[in-house]
Amino acid sequence: MDGSESDDLDHLFSETVRETMDGSVYGAWRSIRDADAVPLSFGFPYPESFPNGELVSAAESLFEYEGDRALQYGGGEYADALPAVIVERARDRGIDCTTSQVHLTNGATNAIDTACQTFLDRGDTVFVEAPTFMGALRLFRNYGVDIEDCEMDENGLDVEALAADLAAREEAGDPLPKLLYTIPNFHNPTGVTLPEGRRERLLELAETYDFLVLEDDPYGQLRYDGTEPPPIRALDGTGRAIRINTFSKTVAPGVRTGWIIAEEPFVEQFDRINAGGEPSYTRGLIARYAEEGRLDRAIEELCAGYRERRDRMMESLADRMPPGTTWSEPDGGFFVWVEFPEGVDAEGMLPDAIDEGVTYLPGSFFYAGDNGTRHARLSFSHVPPAAIDEGIAALATAVRAEVPAIGAGD
Amino acid sequence: MDGSESDDLDHLFSETVRETMDGSVYGAWRSIRDADAVPLSFGFPYPESFPNGELVSAAESLFEYEGDRALQYGGGEYADALPAVIVERARDRGIDCTTSQVHLTNGATNAIDTACQTFLDRGDTVFVEAPTFMGALRLFRNYGVDIEDCEMDENGLDVEALAADLAAREEAGDPLPKLLYTIPNFHNPTGVTLPEGRRERLLELAETYDFLVLEDDPYGQLRYDGTEPPPIRALDGTGRAIRINTFSKTVAPGVRTGWIIAEEPFVEQFDRINAGGEPSYTRGLIARYAEEGRLDRAIEELCAGYRERRDRMMESLADRMPPGTTWSEPDGGFFVWVEFPEGVDAEGMLPDAIDEGVTYLPGSFFYAGDNGTRHARLSFSHVPPAAIDEGIAALATAVRAEVPAIGAGD
Repeated sequence: MDGSESDDLDHLFSETVRETMDGSVYGAWRSIRDADAVPLSFGFPYPESFPNGELVSAAESLFEYEGDRALQYGGGEYADALPAVIVERARDRGIDCTTSQVHLTNGATNAIDTACQTFLDRGDTVFVEAPTFMGALRLFRNYGVDIEDCEMDENGLDVEALAADLAAREEAGDPLPKLLYTIPNFHNPTGVTLPEGRRERLLELAETYDFLVLEDDPYGQLRYDGTEPPPIRALDGTGRAIRINTFSKTVAPGVRTGWIIAEEPFVEQFDRINAGGEPSYTRGLIARYAEEGRLDRAIEELCAGYRERRDRMMESLADRMPPGTTWSEPDGGFFVWVEFPEGVDAEGMLPDAIDEGVTYLPGSFFYAGDNGTRHARLSFSHVPPAAIDEGIAALATAVRAEVPAIGAGD
Repeated sequence: MDGSESDDLDHLFSETVRETMDGSVYGAWRSIRDADAVPLSFGFPYPESFPNGELVSAAESLFEYEGDRALQYGGGEYADALPAVIVERARDRGIDCTTSQVHLTNGATNAIDTACQTFLDRGDTVFVEAPTFMGALRLFRNYGVDIEDCEMDENGLDVEALAADLAAREEAGDPLPKLLYTIPNFHNPTGVTLPEGRRERLLELAETYDFLVLEDDPYGQLRYDGTEPPPIRALDGTGRAIRINTFSKTVAPGVRTGWIIAEEPFVEQFDRINAGGEPSYTRGLIARYAEEGRLDRAIEELCAGYRERRDRMMESLADRMPPGTTWSEPDGGFFVWVEFPEGVDAEGMLPDAIDEGVTYLPGSFFYAGDNGTRHARLSFSHVPPAAIDEGIAALATAVRAEVPAIGAGD
C-alpha cells in the first residue's frame, strides 16, 4: 500500500500515541550517531570492558549444570537464583529486602515503563529533575501525564525548592505529583550526587504529599572517589521508594537485564502486568557469571577504567576550554555536564562541532520544556583517554568559533 | 514495613491496576506447576529440542566475528541483520515486506503488549476468539478495554457469525471493535486452523468496520500434515493486519525474541514507544544461529519430534477416553482441545486428575467470561511419547471417576 493509504490508518492509534507521535528527536539522534567524530555523546560502556569470553564460559557451564532447563520457559536454577543474587548485593548497599521484593525486567528502561504502567493514569502529574534522562522523559510522555520540572543544583535535586513548590501547589489546589523520578547517583546528564540529608527530606515529602519516589540507579556502583550515600530505598520507611537498577553498566548492555526493588504488594502487580519479562537464558548467564565473585572483580576493573577516563576529561576541559565554560566534577558514573559561555547555542553548534571532530548531546535533549540551550552532556565512558582529549580539543575549537569575542588563542 | 501499611498504598496504583489486581488465576497455576504428575498442561517445547551446544558455538563465532560490538548497546552486525533474516523467512511464507516493516520485541507477549499500548484506549472494544490464549486475555485486561468473544468452530473463527455480530452492533449503535486478536494456525488452545477463505473474509470485515487484525502465529511453522494457508498478513491489502511471531518455539523460549510485521507507520510508532527492546546479545546469537540453514534444519527436526507426539496423543485419546469425549485433531502446533462427557467440570476435576497423575489446563482459563467448563487443553509438546500415553490414561481414569454412569471398564 502507498503512503496516502497508510495515513488513513492513523486514526487507529491510541489517543496518547496520536498526541506524541510527532514529538521525537530522532533526526538529531541520527546525525549524531552517524557522525565521523569522537563520540562523547553516548552513555556507552567502553567496549574493551565487555566480558565476551566469560559469557561463553558461563554459557558452557550453565548448560553443563542445567542441561535442558537453561533454555526452557522460566529457565533453570541459575535463572531462579538471580533475584537472590540481587538481594545479596542490595543488602551490601544497605537495602534490607527479600526476593519477593524483586521484579526482574528487560533492562532499566523496561523497569521505568513497568512502573509507569502500574501507577500512572492519563492526566497524572510526574515530577522529574530538570534536566533528566531523556529516555525516561520519552516513556513518561507515552503515558499521557503532565511532566513538571524540579530544580537542581550542584548537589542534585533541590529538595527545599521542591518542598516550597509542593506547598504552593497544595495551597493553590494545583495537581500534586503521583510520582517523582530521580537519578540520585552520578545523575544523567549532570553527574551530580544527592547527599543523604536530601534523600531523607525527599522521603519526608513523599509521605507528606503522598507520592512515589522512583529511584533510578544504573551508575551507583561505578564510584571513583568518596563514599556512597545510602540508597533512597535503604532510607525509606514509607514504602514509597521504588528502586530501579540494571546489569547493563556492570555486565554489558547486550544482556539487558534490570530489576525493581519495592514493597511486595507493588512487586506482585509488576509481576502480574509484566509482558514477557527478560529472557531466562540471559538471566541464567548473569547469575552464573556473578558467581565466584566475577561480577565484583569486573566492577573493580570498570571503576579503574572509568576513573582514568573521568580524570582525563577533567584535565582536558581545564586545559582546553575557553573562559566562561564551566562543568560538573562527577565522583562516578559516565557524565559531565558542561555550561558553555554566553552566546553559545549547544544544539545550533552541533554540526560545527561534528565538523571539528566531536559529538555531544545538547542540553535541550534532557528537558521536558525549552531549557538547557547553553548546556551539553559529555560522556567519558565510551572512548579511550587519548580520544577524550582529542574530542575536548575539537569541542573547544567549536566553542571559540561560536563566540569570536573569546579569541582563537584565548 | 508491615502488611497493613503496605495496604495503605494501594490507592497509588493506576485505575486499571486497581480494577484488575484481584482477578488473577495464579493460585490454580501454582497447583498445576508444582504437581507431581505428567504435565500435559503447559505449552512448553520438549527439552531435548533445545540447541544448547549450537548456542555456545554461535556465541563463540559471534564474539570472534564482532569482537567488542556484540555486547554493546544496539549490538553488532548480526544483531543488525536479524530483521533481514525475518524478512527473508516471511517472504518464503508469502509475506512481501521490508526491514522497515519489522519491529523486534522481547517475545510474542511483549509484541501483543506493544500493539495494545500503541492502539488501545481505555474503554475500547477488543474482539477475541473464544476460547483464546490466556496470556493475551491478561494483557488486554491490563489496558482497561472491553473484551468481547467471537464464536469458533472446527475451522477456527466463524467469520459469518462475526459478520452478523458486527452488522447487529452497527445497527444497534453498539461499540465496534478497535482490534480483533486471532491465532489462525494451530490455535491456542483448540489446535484448529483458519482456512484461506475465512482469512480473506476477515480482512474484508476489518476494512468495512475499520478494525485491526492482530495475527499471532507462534506455531505456524510447526506443521505436521497438510499445506499452510497464506498468513493473514500475506493476504492483506488494507494495511490492517499486524502479524506477531517469535523464535521461542523454533529456537528456544529462553532466547525470548519475537517480532511484529506491519505497515511502516505502525512500526515507526512501535519503535518509538518501545521500552527497551530485546537484548542485542540474544538478537545477535539468533541471527548467527539462523545462518547456514541451522534454523531450517532445526524446524524440520522439531516437526518430526512433535509429529510423533501428536500422533501418540491422538492414538491414546482414541484408545483410552470414555465415550462422550471428543477432541480436536490438529495438523500442527502444540495443543489438543478436549470436550469431556456431560457432567464433567474440568476445573473441579483437576485435583483428582493430578492425584491420578496428569495435569491439564481447564478450558475456563481460556475464556474472558464463564465458559469452557467441560473443556481442557492438552499439550503434546512437552513430554516424551510414552509419558503422553501415561498422562492420557490417568486423564481417562479421572473422567470415569467423575461420571460413574460411564462405568469403570467401559
